[in-house]
Amino acid sequence: MILGKVVGTVWATRKDEELVGMKFQIVKHVDLDYKVKDAFVVAVDTVQAGVGDIVLMCSGSSARQTSLTKNKPVDAVIMAVVDKLDVAD
Amino acid sequence: MILGKVVGTVWATRKDEELVGMKFQIVKHVDLDYKVKDAFVVAVDTVQAGVGDIVLMCSGSSARQTSLTKNKPVDAVIMAVVDKLDVAD
Amino acid sequence: MILGKVVGTVWATRKDEELVGMKFQIVKHVDLDYKVKDAFVVAVDTVQAGVGDIVLMCSGSSARQTSLTKNKPVDAVIMAVVDKLDVAD
Amino acid sequence: MILGKVVGTVWATRKDEELVGMKFQIVKHVDLDYKVKDAFVVAVDTVQAGVGDIVLMCSGSSARQTSLTKNKPVDAVIMAVVDKLDVAD
Amino acid sequence: MILGKVVGTVWATRKDEELVGMKFQIVKHVDLDYKVKDAFVVAVDTVQAGVGDIVLMCSGSSARQTSLTKNKPVDAVIMAVVDKLDVAD
Repeated sequence: MILGKVVGTVWATRKDEELVGMKFQIVKHVDLDYKVKDAFVVAVDTVQAGVGDIVLMCSGSSARQTSLTKNKPVDAVIMAVVDKLDVAD
Repeated sequence: MILGKVVGTVWATRKDEELVGMKFQIVKHVDLDYKVKDAFVVAVDTVQAGVGDIVLMCSGSSARQTSLTKNKPVDAVIMAVVDKLDVAD
Repeated sequence: MILGKVVGTVWATRKDEELVGMKFQIVKHVDLDYKVKDAFVVAVDTVQAGVGDIVLMCSGSSARQTSLTKNKPVDAVIMAVVDKLDVAD
Repeated sequence: MILGKVVGTVWATRKDEELVGMKFQIVKHVDLDYKVKDAFVVAVDTVQAGVGDIVLMCSGSSARQTSLTKNKPVDAVIMAVVDKLDVAD
Repeated sequence: MILGKVVGTVWATRKDEELVGMKFQIVKHVDLDYKVKDAFVVAVDTVQAGVGDIVLMCSGSSARQTSLTKNKPVDAVIMAVVDKLDVAD
């Protein structure tokens, strides 16, 4: 999984009909100090993550293993909101 | 999903027979200001996206989860046309 | 899909028995002017692409969605020979 | 598989219900001398790997081929703790 | 598929029980002149490749399409030993 920060939302009216009702969040990659990187992905939110939240994203076919995204053309989901990291040095 | 901009079309007569009738669009990656990057992908269009449209692309096995691409040798689809982005700073 | 140019062939006698009879082509990535990059992939040919052809490659599980590669340990196929690109500026 | 070193743990209360009870470890990529790189991934631990352990990680749909992660929205697992490497020069 | 050179072996006693008996080879990427790059992957050997052999590696779910790796938490296999490359200029 990738560690990221929600920085915004994508609005799209014209889309595959299987995607109606999903929330597409813009998630920037972060380092272990939560410093935001340039790289970003658009991920379907499954845990009501909001802008500013640090999250875990899951990609590929694994992104379709939630009840919301099953069999949908979705390749990235937010599946957890991060409380904290314990990092050894 | 990846944010991109449609910049053109690929024409290919000789191809896997499962691909007949599909439209192969050239999609360049864009940043959150819609500025085009060098990286590009060829994606099957499922939402009648045209040149100049900002779109969402889905990759891998998830690209086969549309009615058009099911069980087809396709690893990238355009599954939404973007209206706008809300991005926090 | 990735745009590439066939630049050669891999010969391998000792291989998984499921791969007997397949042609393994060396495909270099190209840009939209067909300029060859350093990056390359070895892909199974399904459309009789020859050296010098510009092709589309499909990767991952989608590479197993052709009659030739079904259930085979293959993660990249050439599934189309490109006639031309229409690219807007 | 990717060679990595466990450097910490992610704590996340709000998550997909399928993920309850899993341990999310932060794994930095290492080179063949076990020197840690900047790149890291968050992986589900299936072998009780602890901080400081050198491990093998498996990604994508293959990460769901353990009894713990089957059908779960998980795209990276630690599936082995490395004892040693034999590397020729 | 990726072209690589076997440079060593990973020893791991503590691992997912499905992995018992598999040989984990360290494979460095090579260019078309067999010059070794820094990037490496750990792949399960299915063709008795030894140190020094030039090989083809297959990744992702396709790595599970061999009799040895079926349904196993493995995301990279060596599926061919390369005899030679024919490369046009």
